[in-house]
Amino acid sequence: MKDLRSVALSIQGGEIRLLDQTRLPLEEVWIPIPTIAAMVEAIQRLAVRGAPLISIAACLALARYAEQGASPDELRAAARALRESRPTAVNLMRALDRMLGDGADAALSAERLARTAVAIFEEDVRLCEKIAEHSAKLIPENAQILTHCNTGGLGTAGAGTAFAVIQRAHAQGKNIHVYVDETRPLLQGARLTTWELRRAGVPYTLICDNMAASLMRAGRIHCAIVGADRIALNGDFANKIGTYSVAALAAHHGLPFYCAAPRTTIDPEMHSGESIPIEERKAEEVRGFADALAWAPPDAPVYNPAFDVTPAALVSAWILDAGVFTPADIASGALKRVALNRD
Amino acid sequence: MKDLRSVALSIQGGEIRLLDQTRLPLEEVWIPIPTIAAMVEAIQRLAVRGAPLISIAACLALARYAEQGASPDELRAAARALRESRPTAVNLMRALDRMLGDGADAALSAERLARTAVAIFEEDVRLCEKIAEHSAKLIPENAQILTHCNTGGLGTAGAGTAFAVIQRAHAQGKNIHVYVDETRPLLQGARLTTWELRRAGVPYTLICDNMAASLMRAGRIHCAIVGADRIALNGDFANKIGTYSVAALAAHHGLPFYCAAPRTTIDPEMHSGESIPIEERKAEEVRGFADALAWAPPDAPVYNPAFDVTPAALVSAWILDAGVFTPADIASGALKRVALNRD
Repeated sequence: MKDLRSVALSIQGGEIRLLDQTRLPLEEVWIPIPTIAAMVEAIQRLAVRGAPLISIAACLALARYAEQGASPDELRAAARALRESRPTAVNLMRALDRMLGDGADAALSAERLARTAVAIFEEDVRLCEKIAEHSAKLIPENAQILTHCNTGGLGTAGAGTAFAVIQRAHAQGKNIHVYVDETRPLLQGARLTTWELRRAGVPYTLICDNMAASLMRAGRIHCAIVGADRIALNGDFANKIGTYSVAALAAHHGLPFYCAAPRTTIDPEMHSGESIPIEERKAEEVRGFADALAWAPPDAPVYNPAFDVTPAALVSAWILDAGVFTPADIASGALKRVALNRD
Repeated sequence: MKDLRSVALSIQGGEIRLLDQTRLPLEEVWIPIPTIAAMVEAIQRLAVRGAPLISIAACLALARYAEQGASPDELRAAARALRESRPTAVNLMRALDRMLGDGADAALSAERLARTAVAIFEEDVRLCEKIAEHSAKLIPENAQILTHCNTGGLGTAGAGTAFAVIQRAHAQGKNIHVYVDETRPLLQGARLTTWELRRAGVPYTLICDNMAASLMRAGRIHCAIVGADRIALNGDFANKIGTYSVAALAAHHGLPFYCAAPRTTIDPEMHSGESIPIEERKAEEVRGFADALAWAPPDAPVYNPAFDVTPAALVSAWILDAGVFTPADIASGALKRVALNRD
């Protein structure tokens, strides 16, 4: 397979390595992923994360497994294990479907799987680029932008989704400032988005998730931009827990709220957000931070959904690789057209 | 001075001890507070916290200092140091004003200071009791209640404010369930409210602050109740950061939002919330958790207000010791009457 490299994923001489995102920003450790089981584990413990990137990482693992001589049945079983590693992001399922093709053994040749996985990687880079291009008109000079979770080069093969929008506005000299929700419980904002903004030289301020509302009320936030893990055809979308809170608060304060994502995040089978499966994760994540520290009573009952669903009614525009879509566009079926057509 | 004991404060044979709230719930450690400087430090590092309780702890420390032979000038300097320990909660300023009386040396006798401090402690117990009594009609059967921060016996000399409302509803057999915001950055919900709810046998679920919105949307939260650190005469109030977020989300979802507090939390000099001083605390609190762990880049720029202000327009009712007040009551000047009259 061709050598490839992104911010958090590398394949060189056929060896897949991931930047272990659970250890950022304090340590930059690349870990080898020699097997399907290792990739499933890396996805589940969020060593690799971000809806586009987990789909790409899973496809590369599958292609490599084929190169190692796995049989069609072994490849199908591996695809099932990868597909079930996390339930909410649809990019993973769509990309694996594309890898499996028509399901026949012929589609599972090592050569075709490698070519398809590389294509998915390279397409994602281009999709990120197009998201950034289309967004230019939406971000005004001196914008103070709220974002949630991580949507950059750590979550995609390219420049990111919401993060690419931010980075492009900064590159255009718009004098922007980013407020970063820390994004409890796993703190992707505090750990990863800060790390990426610093690398990109974008001025930012880290806040706790519960501080965004008072910044909005004080006029210090002008818009919010987030990514997505799955977009239903009516424009509802699942994203990291707390996204819906940002959307509702933006609506309360009359601020624009944008969802940025590649077309691979649209689920052409899902008509509304109500049907999107929401992953619930272990209580320890809320009782403390990762395995490092617990601060709540060890038996504290916990609710820990990893995602929430934001209804389309709260979205000002969807920034996709195919363009910027308004609520009227969405109502007229734009998402189905984007999801089913390829550029 | 008379022996006194609350959940988190004890005075016995003149010795003041505090339950170190920074170490809850994992350790229950009582620490002696032998000097004014030790009390100032305990207040600043939140070993003792909660608007009513810090005022009572400060008064007891001042009374004890008088018993140890401090001169009137030393007592006035001590009162200044205590007053400046935290800026937002007004109970502290009002209680110290009451201790200083007319400001003359005669008012600063050890006997009068001890009597006044004990009276403030015992009044707080009664105020909590009355808050709970008045609230009974507001909480329906099977209510699922969101609360933020800690407002119980750890924050008052008595049963608490919002917590007393919750405990009373539970004691009345209303089959309530409490959703506890963890309350970043200092996690008073995760650490302290869970501890108190468990002691009280009230069923609860711990959540991250950013999860409340999706629970509201799902119909799983029926009302929100919070405490206050300072209430302006127009009903605006300061409380732990994130309270305004809860209020705005409750409004967005059409849910009742209640503020529970004793009259000592009303600032009769403050006409609106805009003038309430908001304490900003150190960046390390947001970059990690206390001194135990850091997860953000060590140089990450941070905004860390300890409180926010909720406008009166978002409050369904103020549950005070003097009764339940509607927005119409507040508009007609009820808070000034309550603040200036004593029962």
